[in-house]
Amino acid sequence: MADGFLLVGPRLLSFVSDPFGGENLVNAQRDYADLVQRGLSLDLTRGKPSPRQLDLSNDMLRLPTSFRAADGTDARNYGGLQGLPELRELFAPLVQVPAGQLVVGGNSSLALMHDTIVHALLTPVPGAARRWVEEPKVTFLCPVPGYDRHFTITERFGITMVPVPMNADGPDMDVVERLVATDASVKGMWCVPKYSNPSGVTYSAETVRRLAAMPAAAPDFRIFWDNAYAVHHLTDAPAELADLLALAAEHGNPDRVFVYASTSKVTLAGSGVSFFGSSPANVEWFLHNTSKQSIGPDKVNQLRHVEFLRDPEGVAAHMRRHAELIWPKFELVDRVLAKELGDLGTWSSPVGGYFISLEVPHAAEVVARAKAAGIALTPAGSTHPYGKDPDDRFIRIAPTFPGLDELEQAITGLAVCARLVADEHA
Amino acid sequence: MADGFLLVGPRLLSFVSDPFGGENLVNAQRDYADLVQRGLSLDLTRGKPSPRQLDLSNDMLRLPTSFRAADGTDARNYGGLQGLPELRELFAPLVQVPAGQLVVGGNSSLALMHDTIVHALLTPVPGAARRWVEEPKVTFLCPVPGYDRHFTITERFGITMVPVPMNADGPDMDVVERLVATDASVKGMWCVPKYSNPSGVTYSAETVRRLAAMPAAAPDFRIFWDNAYAVHHLTDAPAELADLLALAAEHGNPDRVFVYASTSKVTLAGSGVSFFGSSPANVEWFLHNTSKQSIGPDKVNQLRHVEFLRDPEGVAAHMRRHAELIWPKFELVDRVLAKELGDLGTWSSPVGGYFISLEVPHAAEVVARAKAAGIALTPAGSTHPYGKDPDDRFIRIAPTFPGLDELEQAITGLAVCARLVADEHA
Repeated sequence: MADGFLLVGPRLLSFVSDPFGGENLVNAQRDYADLVQRGLSLDLTRGKPSPRQLDLSNDMLRLPTSFRAADGTDARNYGGLQGLPELRELFAPLVQVPAGQLVVGGNSSLALMHDTIVHALLTPVPGAARRWVEEPKVTFLCPVPGYDRHFTITERFGITMVPVPMNADGPDMDVVERLVATDASVKGMWCVPKYSNPSGVTYSAETVRRLAAMPAAAPDFRIFWDNAYAVHHLTDAPAELADLLALAAEHGNPDRVFVYASTSKVTLAGSGVSFFGSSPANVEWFLHNTSKQSIGPDKVNQLRHVEFLRDPEGVAAHMRRHAELIWPKFELVDRVLAKELGDLGTWSSPVGGYFISLEVPHAAEVVARAKAAGIALTPAGSTHPYGKDPDDRFIRIAPTFPGLDELEQAITGLAVCARLVADEHA
Repeated sequence: MADGFLLVGPRLLSFVSDPFGGENLVNAQRDYADLVQRGLSLDLTRGKPSPRQLDLSNDMLRLPTSFRAADGTDARNYGGLQGLPELRELFAPLVQVPAGQLVVGGNSSLALMHDTIVHALLTPVPGAARRWVEEPKVTFLCPVPGYDRHFTITERFGITMVPVPMNADGPDMDVVERLVATDASVKGMWCVPKYSNPSGVTYSAETVRRLAAMPAAAPDFRIFWDNAYAVHHLTDAPAELADLLALAAEHGNPDRVFVYASTSKVTLAGSGVSFFGSSPANVEWFLHNTSKQSIGPDKVNQLRHVEFLRDPEGVAAHMRRHAELIWPKFELVDRVLAKELGDLGTWSSPVGGYFISLEVPHAAEVVARAKAAGIALTPAGSTHPYGKDPDDRFIRIAPTFPGLDELEQAITGLAVCARLVADEHA
């Protein structure tokens, strides 16, 4: 293969082959050229359910059969800011919040998180000396790898983000405890505590206990507990998550926790319901603020969810049907990476959630190579605040949307890219 | 009738009859005592559609029949921040915004207004020198009588509200032009330009032209154009509203206008869709901000609306069915007030919208008397910023929710209260 430009399929690809490189590099270059020539167009960027998963909830399009809530409320009309009691009772045990302290929102738990920060910026949270917008500096702790859309919210509002390493049992609690105890500008912490995005880690009971009990320099310190994957088990051995809201109250920190969840990855991704849960004082603060924002949520969609899911057992049965569709994809990724990548990288093998976290050297180059070969991945660095992964190591894989064949092509191709980049740096 | 306490039905009522009062007062007191004795429980507080109006949209509970948008998008999944093109095209002519400049939100246009102010507080609007939260003072002009929920939003954020009198053709434009031209703290103005809440006034073409053309001291001055009743005609002679967005652009103020609308009073009050429309620069700013807040709106509900309403003619036909149910209520209120109140007060006779504005002396006392007789009205003063009606004159009547019988009792009772209070002050 000659140096210089190589015309492959419809793409003009430029790279320099290394005449002194070993056989590995030559093979890797050949494999990559083959990959590019296939003209793939595959997308592993976002954690979207597949059409077959969405089909599981198609019956919802004919619901509700009645517009009457259990207490006789006409769900079609205005009002009901906190959400229908029967829906809050259905999800209370699943998200570990008493029904009376649970609020049902619109179709996006991300919007509830965004709006909670807005409320805190513009109306003091219980215990705060002032509005966050009046603070000289507001800091959020960000376990990494983490969820890019969390970081986008805090970045938008000029909140300083401090990364904290994730371990196998959750964030490094020595670091967290030190920062929270000593820095009064630390007002918040992002957490995806179960089947974390993207590492798949579930916080251990001891991690949760320490989060509940640790002293905080800021009286208005809040943990943003995004329990997005509370019921999203992939195996028959689901992870157990300790109840942070209850533990925080037991440890004298009742107002420390904001809980979030949604049915976006339970029913229909764009048409689910979201949940906010917290202490009575925080819920009162939240509802006081949202009462200025809206007359109430879509209660017909709430009834639709109650009729469709019925009870916690109904949710569990529905989630098993999701797992039957998703689990083979997670197994496939694990198998292909083991075969094609071997010890060139490490990756998570989660038993729940939506993501696999791959660690390889020169992640940004690998993602760029994959993009040039028609395999779209979330940008390297997106797992970190400000898009900056200091070790250039993490790649988030979202395996749920593509079919198995496409997924196998994409992961095989990703491994080709990772080997090429590794050999180029060898 | 003796002075002092009078036990009437289940209520202990205290008032002092006036031995020197004329026959009018004695009669008014007797009528009021009769009213209280009836033990009514009637609610004229909020502009809610009646169950029969909501029944008009019951077919929506079985829609959509397909989850495919016109361009093939799977409406069940994430995404589509601006909203489905077919829904934007359906409503574009009705809300006077080009479809490309229209954004579909969730079930609440109030939330879109609230969130627009949040965005402006925290991210500079196009043309702004800084974020509104950094301004020493932010002022909004508030035509009065106006909509209490508008005032609640601005009050929450510490925005100074300046009342502007409403005339028969809209707000007093001499006052508006002077304040907007000379006071750079005036960043916004609330408007319900068609069948205004609560006066029923539609802004004249000349008023709209002056709003579009007037010089503004603040480069980031915005008109919040809450076109809540754009299609809510009650007669065959609908009011015409000039196109402020187009006129502002023609007069060199393209970014002046934020347009809002919703289907809350078209389809299902709690389960409609909302709209935001503006200039291309403002829409880009708005979507940039909302892209941090949510992955996208409920597109299944958007498809549900498209299938149900079909086209602008479908909307018009549907609104005629609403008018058939509502118009007799407006006629009834007008008839009862004319008969029972006569020249003790004045009131609007709107040909669209949801409210009748009643002006009587000592409005707060009248509302209190009505409350004691089991007739709930929006608190006197709620038509004004900070709940302060300086003339204590305005009462908002929301006639749509009760049945005709209940409504007749309530308005007759309200007239009894107004007469009693007037005679007490005579």
